[in-house]
Amino acid sequence: MTPAAPEAVPVSVPPAIAAFLPVPTPAAWVTRALTELPVLLLDHAACEQKAAATALATLHRYPQHDWLVDRMSRLAREELRHFEQVRALMQRRGVAWRALSASRYAGGLRAELRRTEPGRLVDTLLVGALIEARSCERFALLAPRLPEDVGRFYAGLLASEARHFENYLALARRVADPAEIETRLGQLAVAEAGLITRPDPQFRFHSGLPVAAAAA
Amino acid sequence: MTPAAPEAVPVSVPPAIAAFLPVPTPAAWVTRALTELPVLLLDHAACEQKAAATALATLHRYPQHDWLVDRMSRLAREELRHFEQVRALMQRRGVAWRALSASRYAGGLRAELRRTEPGRLVDTLLVGALIEARSCERFALLAPRLPEDVGRFYAGLLASEARHFENYLALARRVADPAEIETRLGQLAVAEAGLITRPDPQFRFHSGLPVAAAAA
Repeated sequence: MTPAAPEAVPVSVPPAIAAFLPVPTPAAWVTRALTELPVLLLDHAACEQKAAATALATLHRYPQHDWLVDRMSRLAREELRHFEQVRALMQRRGVAWRALSASRYAGGLRAELRRTEPGRLVDTLLVGALIEARSCERFALLAPRLPEDVGRFYAGLLASEARHFENYLALARRVADPAEIETRLGQLAVAEAGLITRPDPQFRFHSGLPVAAAAA
Repeated sequence: MTPAAPEAVPVSVPPAIAAFLPVPTPAAWVTRALTELPVLLLDHAACEQKAAATALATLHRYPQHDWLVDRMSRLAREELRHFEQVRALMQRRGVAWRALSASRYAGGLRAELRRTEPGRLVDTLLVGALIEARSCERFALLAPRLPEDVGRFYAGLLASEARHFENYLALARRVADPAEIETRLGQLAVAEAGLITRPDPQFRFHSGLPVAAAAA
């Protein structure tokens, strides 16, 4: 059998995602990512694992909310399936595991969470929406530019991340009124924009402006 | 369509599981469990959640072992699917969530883990095998005696737990020789037998001899 010609991967950032994010990813981050594929994949695998752990921790913290527990359990399963898929792709490409320090991104956002309930739950869900939206945007930016196997995989993940973004927002709307969501999203977006646009000496899936670009 | 007549659930403890466990579950535990269905289901759901969290923690702790990471990720997904299934069954039966204190069982076994590697990993895997084997035995004991919907569900879970038991043992054999496994299993089995047979004031999925029976 003649293998089918590889199709181009037609991908663009979904309009709802572009409208939600406070700033677009700097072009310099995309340029850098294309030269750092092993680190990108290693850190992406770590992000999927942490997303699953965060979903599990969230369902453990709020066992009384049926609507949250079931959603978080299914989300954790999906993140773990993605984790296994990135790892399989790494193995096919010969990317061996090595320890990477974490990006400043998720910790920086988590530092913004209010400490008391129900504010903490609202913020957890809004931060979840922001992280999923940013991931979706970056998959869309990378997919057409990466080697075909990785690009195709990222184009597939993009739809999941867009759905997770919508899910997190819908969950937040169950515990907060529209005014509170708008206010908090505005505040969290300022933090997110800073993490994405400030110079960042470390390249990671969610890192900021590459330092070389900032210095140029 | 005429619904098919409910079939009896023919279940018995798999011979490999019965041979592996140091002691059988006391008959008094089974008798008690049949009168405590809501607590049984609530605690069973918590056990599935904790099993998923333990699998995630294990893959996080040993990222360098590909053979372990992929297996633990798939295991965590399976435990979460069971968690969702128990919760769905609880909802159909009108069992509302409430906080339960944890059984002494898993904590009692975890206290036996060696503190240094590679002993800690070997022990973690052997304790995993013991817990899965005990769960499998109890599902088999309960399935034919519980209301039909729960019994059928438990009979289905039994096969998964038996497979998880085999998986944990196979993983342990990758990091320890047969003599070490035999020695440690002997020591861990003493602890497990104590947790199962000593009087236990608290009824849970993995609790010991019900106190009323001990006092009789």
